[in-house]
Amino acid sequence: MNQSDVIHVELGERRYPIYIGEDLLKDSDLLASHLTGGQVVVVTNETVAPLYLSQILDALASKPCVTVVTLPDGEQYKTWETLGSIFDQVLADRHNRTTTFIALGGGVVGDITGFAAACYQRGVDFIQVPTTLLAQVDSSVGGKTAVNHPLGKNMIGAFYQPKAVLIDTRSLSTLGDREFAAGMAEVIKYGLIADSAFYEWLLANKSLLKNRDPVALKQAITRSCELKAEVVASDERESGRRAILNLGHTFGHAIETFSGYGAWLHGEAVAAGMVLALKLSSLRGAATEHDLADLEALLSYFGLPTGAPVDMSLGDFMSLMALDKKVQDGRLRFVLLEGLGSAIVVSDVTEQELSRIIA
Amino acid sequence: MNQSDVIHVELGERRYPIYIGEDLLKDSDLLASHLTGGQVVVVTNETVAPLYLSQILDALASKPCVTVVTLPDGEQYKTWETLGSIFDQVLADRHNRTTTFIALGGGVVGDITGFAAACYQRGVDFIQVPTTLLAQVDSSVGGKTAVNHPLGKNMIGAFYQPKAVLIDTRSLSTLGDREFAAGMAEVIKYGLIADSAFYEWLLANKSLLKNRDPVALKQAITRSCELKAEVVASDERESGRRAILNLGHTFGHAIETFSGYGAWLHGEAVAAGMVLALKLSSLRGAATEHDLADLEALLSYFGLPTGAPVDMSLGDFMSLMALDKKVQDGRLRFVLLEGLGSAIVVSDVTEQELSRIIA
Repeated sequence: MNQSDVIHVELGERRYPIYIGEDLLKDSDLLASHLTGGQVVVVTNETVAPLYLSQILDALASKPCVTVVTLPDGEQYKTWETLGSIFDQVLADRHNRTTTFIALGGGVVGDITGFAAACYQRGVDFIQVPTTLLAQVDSSVGGKTAVNHPLGKNMIGAFYQPKAVLIDTRSLSTLGDREFAAGMAEVIKYGLIADSAFYEWLLANKSLLKNRDPVALKQAITRSCELKAEVVASDERESGRRAILNLGHTFGHAIETFSGYGAWLHGEAVAAGMVLALKLSSLRGAATEHDLADLEALLSYFGLPTGAPVDMSLGDFMSLMALDKKVQDGRLRFVLLEGLGSAIVVSDVTEQELSRIIA
Repeated sequence: MNQSDVIHVELGERRYPIYIGEDLLKDSDLLASHLTGGQVVVVTNETVAPLYLSQILDALASKPCVTVVTLPDGEQYKTWETLGSIFDQVLADRHNRTTTFIALGGGVVGDITGFAAACYQRGVDFIQVPTTLLAQVDSSVGGKTAVNHPLGKNMIGAFYQPKAVLIDTRSLSTLGDREFAAGMAEVIKYGLIADSAFYEWLLANKSLLKNRDPVALKQAITRSCELKAEVVASDERESGRRAILNLGHTFGHAIETFSGYGAWLHGEAVAAGMVLALKLSSLRGAATEHDLADLEALLSYFGLPTGAPVDMSLGDFMSLMALDKKVQDGRLRFVLLEGLGSAIVVSDVTEQELSRIIA
């Protein structure tokens, strides 16, 4: 077993470690060191359970009360109703306030499990065990938890930090190409918003990454987690700087809602949204045609979309974005680049500018 | 207008004021001083709305977006489904993260509104405007928010503090006798657990209080809020001392669940539970027969029950209490008195002791 890397998210009394390495899922000592009581709830989904559930259950063999909740797979199940069904099962098994929830799966499982842990008996411990690239580099870190509402994505949720994040890089070996690419979209995002050297490294190593070279992948995951941990530590509840993590997300959420949850993967919508954000930045002189071509080529190399659905109009965007959480006092807020590796949040984008980038 | 009293709940960056006085509902300046944006959601119920909604709406006349959510009245509606319906209405009116929720009503409205505010877009501001005695002295202060589950009371919720609590003592003039008495149960609780002089004062002034003498009532409310604020400030998330506020509640919650939500008022169940807790204390030599007789007489004077439902067995209690949030590592925890005005939490109560007090 290789040595695992450890990154800490520095949030005072809510500080927690992110472990990154191979075969962490089988490491019962590591898992046990973050469990306090004898009760555990493992939430996973129908796709992940056959692959990794037995490893976690082996590692939990000494615990007297282990409840497994297996959800259907997909963003369309990240709902109020699914969340309620988790509570039904956990209460039927009489878990008390000392229980620990473990999220075993991708971003949907992590988001809904974290929110369930935040609400169950007014808050119990939880551990993120992300098994997709997107969850490993993004959604499992930082404490944003939520479910969707038909009128908007992630509208109901909580800021609630896990006690630990366990990233087993070997779990990526079973990830489909489309899901892998969706995770790469978020990796690329970190380079764009916070680290131009990392972005250059991604451009230079895209072939190694696409071939899932273990060393290159671990390096990309570790750097992404470091960047996210640093931003989250500086602004846990997104009152300022943390909003730069939403590059491409205002557009992306609108695309996801427009298409119906599950039709586009979150990372795919973010990829298209990042291209739109770079086009906006370009209108304002902060990005070149060359930058735009590089990004589109990189996203395309991983099979990611570089534009919105063809049947989605400016009116569709305006209507859906008006409900975005990033709206303040009626003004839409967008993350733009000041240059590669540096992002800002602006609220003065005009409808005219939007009409120029949304054909 | 009389001068209002102000008590602060000292929780660092979550510090907030409790205002106590007459006609605070009409005080638009006071309300406005705690609102940041132009959007407000008022959550109330069918009983309270005809009495006080217009006063609040007058005070909010300058706000461009005011949504009113009127719930059915009763503990049986403090559910996951009702909570979901609040989000449906608030999202339909496109409230964003700068909105403020106002809870106008009793404990049920306050608990569900606070939880809705905790979850809406991962947390927005809220203000408690409690209109029942129970909500004024207990549930509106301290940040405990929740909904019930068929398998247990307050099982799904959050610790989420309001920005302010506005207690208009004049709203008690329309309160039914049964609801008034239920609130007195919690007032009496504060005397028992934390202030023997206050308890003696309650015994001596029971007639003034029952007649709702404004001066005596304001004094009782203010002292109750002071005591609660002090306990909450010392232990916000109930990891220790705050649990003494649950005197009578382990028994009380079991009675409420056994009887079906809404059959017993919360304060009534707590009254019966306090008698059981005092009997337990008495078994251990920490209360006298005289203390017990005083408490039963005081509760009876207000028309409150002094025992559990006759058809509720020891087995019913054991089964329902096993799900209580106060269970830790399989051991039931009870609040007992060490003497009048002083409470402790114990986890060594035996089934034999329980069998002696539950006939």
